[in-house]
Amino acid sequence: MAEKIRWRAELDVRTTQAEPQPAGFTDVRATNLAVVLRHLRTNGPSSRAAIAASTGLNKATVSSLTGDLIDQRLLRETGSSGNRIGRPGTALALDGSAYAAIGIQVAADHLTALAVDFAGDQLLLWHRALSLSGGRAVAAIIALAQRAATRVRQQGRTVLGITLAVPGLVDEQGTVRLSPALGWSDLDLRGPVAGSLRQPGLVVTVANQAALAALACFRRQSNLTHAPGDGPAANGGPGARSDQAANGRLAPEGDLILVSGAAGMEAGVITGGRPLHGARGFTGQIGRFALGPAGSPTLADLAGVEPLVRRALPDFDPQSLTDLGPAVEQVAVLARAADAGALAALRDTGRHLGQGLAILANLTDPSMIVLGDHYATLAEWLVPAAEVELAAHLLAPAPARIVASELGSHAGALGAALSHLDRVDTGSLPTAV
Amino acid sequence: MAEKIRWRAELDVRTTQAEPQPAGFTDVRATNLAVVLRHLRTNGPSSRAAIAASTGLNKATVSSLTGDLIDQRLLRETGSSGNRIGRPGTALALDGSAYAAIGIQVAADHLTALAVDFAGDQLLLWHRALSLSGGRAVAAIIALAQRAATRVRQQGRTVLGITLAVPGLVDEQGTVRLSPALGWSDLDLRGPVAGSLRQPGLVVTVANQAALAALACFRRQSNLTHAPGDGPAANGGPGARSDQAANGRLAPEGDLILVSGAAGMEAGVITGGRPLHGARGFTGQIGRFALGPAGSPTLADLAGVEPLVRRALPDFDPQSLTDLGPAVEQVAVLARAADAGALAALRDTGRHLGQGLAILANLTDPSMIVLGDHYATLAEWLVPAAEVELAAHLLAPAPARIVASELGSHAGALGAALSHLDRVDTGSLPTAV
Repeated sequence: MAEKIRWRAELDVRTTQAEPQPAGFTDVRATNLAVVLRHLRTNGPSSRAAIAASTGLNKATVSSLTGDLIDQRLLRETGSSGNRIGRPGTALALDGSAYAAIGIQVAADHLTALAVDFAGDQLLLWHRALSLSGGRAVAAIIALAQRAATRVRQQGRTVLGITLAVPGLVDEQGTVRLSPALGWSDLDLRGPVAGSLRQPGLVVTVANQAALAALACFRRQSNLTHAPGDGPAANGGPGARSDQAANGRLAPEGDLILVSGAAGMEAGVITGGRPLHGARGFTGQIGRFALGPAGSPTLADLAGVEPLVRRALPDFDPQSLTDLGPAVEQVAVLARAADAGALAALRDTGRHLGQGLAILANLTDPSMIVLGDHYATLAEWLVPAAEVELAAHLLAPAPARIVASELGSHAGALGAALSHLDRVDTGSLPTAV
Repeated sequence: MAEKIRWRAELDVRTTQAEPQPAGFTDVRATNLAVVLRHLRTNGPSSRAAIAASTGLNKATVSSLTGDLIDQRLLRETGSSGNRIGRPGTALALDGSAYAAIGIQVAADHLTALAVDFAGDQLLLWHRALSLSGGRAVAAIIALAQRAATRVRQQGRTVLGITLAVPGLVDEQGTVRLSPALGWSDLDLRGPVAGSLRQPGLVVTVANQAALAALACFRRQSNLTHAPGDGPAANGGPGARSDQAANGRLAPEGDLILVSGAAGMEAGVITGGRPLHGARGFTGQIGRFALGPAGSPTLADLAGVEPLVRRALPDFDPQSLTDLGPAVEQVAVLARAADAGALAALRDTGRHLGQGLAILANLTDPSMIVLGDHYATLAEWLVPAAEVELAAHLLAPAPARIVASELGSHAGALGAALSHLDRVDTGSLPTAV
């Protein structure tokens, strides 16, 4: 009867984040700096009094913390606060002038580079053709990374980090373990890129493109609770929420799945506000889902973008292009013209996509499913059939909403850049420059 | 170009756990109390010096913290420390004498009650028959909960909490939203049980049985890094690990999936050391997975325990019992006797189970997959076929190990009880009695 239960040892960094760690005064200050940054990221420009009122920190502490952040050029004083909490006063805002972050998305035939400043404003968005043959792909990625870093530095900003977004399996050392879409295996991508960018403190990482696109969707949602523009924003109160609902825009959700069809078929999963990482980061490979007798088709066979294009466009030549974008646009044109073949192919794809989404939803219970890239382009025709299947296969009532991403084909690059702002906002502040 | 990115607002308790929160001195103390408890839970009895050395807290702080915990009867001084760090001295151990927690697992035809003391020692394990007909099920659950609480109190312990483990969808208010296995929908289970147990501070919760079983597997793993028994344990150093490996026992894993076949087909997912919760807690419904033409069989049809039993035992009468346990034992007897029909049914079930596990692994990248309850009984015959399918369908190299649970049919009840110790260990200390 006396059976001894003991707790597992803490083994790695990710796990220990879930476990209590010893805290001291230095940690308290780092935590509270992060609280202030996150408050401004979420709510827009606010007075010190409003920050104190919203966060529960006392005013003297807020003054001290914001003084440090201003010294570090992460915050700046701006005009008067539009914040409704407390009396109007000098407002503080995130300072975009000193730091920036870069994301580079790698697809089978092109690269996308995107940079944002620390305030989240987009600084550049470049597309470049890429050839995977001849072993020049890594050199092309390095050249683009260097050019983007140089441009950002010419604007007087320090680069916090560069993240490369790739389809397939990427390990924590930044090696692409297996990418069927790119034809790569065991390719060290982080090392050569990091080696080519000589700046102390610049962090280079590599991650899965769907996971980063999901992060971008997750972070971008809160945009929708604010008026757009660069000036001091009104605090997102009930009024702002109503406007947002009236515009048919999305409410923030902590449990979100993004489905990408641009490079094979992958999903990025955010659960409880965090990316689903798994043991090695090898998550989201939904294209491989299969059930039934030996040789049964996979989800990528049943609901992939390339099989859809082959079926909807009888004269489509798969040898002629690796980027499906133009073909997907052509399918949309046919569907708009009520072409029977295109509509049937879209219905069938939507139905199988819905089965795949039901598997995701039965397992992870998201509140929102976002169709990314090519699926977003075709969402108008895919979603009705997908919704029927999702509801039919889901045990739970009230299935997750299926929505189309508004981030276009560079969501992975955006998520890649934003990941570095996230890092600062959770307490990993850059050293002063 | 100037695109404003802002961060999502913090909306709910689960999400804010992932976001920075203001910290103060009270939080520091609560965090450090939790660090000490978790250290002893993981490592067994340790001296104050060893706790300080391992956690990085200074010795004076450890003395103060452990003094508080001894006053609260959560720790006790024991014999000399077997700890290898620091000189031998008075060892501290978790004190099981003052507090206990109860788990009650609800199945279609029986109840299981299990209690553990605060040190993790099992205090009681009871099975009771249950009839779901006639509306007396909730009364039977209440009666069992009261009897278990009374027994624990007679031993001089305060009950920290009671958790009910049920198959199906349970919401955060403790209402069973939908349980096909029990035939329940929108049944408030928490309210009546909490109302019948009048003790201030006693927490009553209801949760999914597979999720709780996964928690039990996750927590029980660390048992395996220690010698069994009640005395002071050696610290789990490299030597202990080798012994463990030599015994073929499991290493602790933060990314674990438990598959349960006892009531429908459900999975409990632990990712990064935390249960996968989703938006509403409606996770793990893997029996509903289906892919292919309309009317395609579900994973529960293909790999469920009841279809297996029907096929392996031609004279099985499904009307005669709701508990599949005896039939599953009979299948194991036939398989041991090399019965061709039973072996073919097991191979086929194992193959389809492997497809289901590949879906789980492609999406979540676990390092360990645990077969629970009936699947554990039949693991010897299911695992070989399942491993082949898992490797064939998984994109990633080196698939997760598939292992059989050693926790028997009451893993849900054990996880239910352990969840309350978890709560204390993460800083929610009981008020002194």
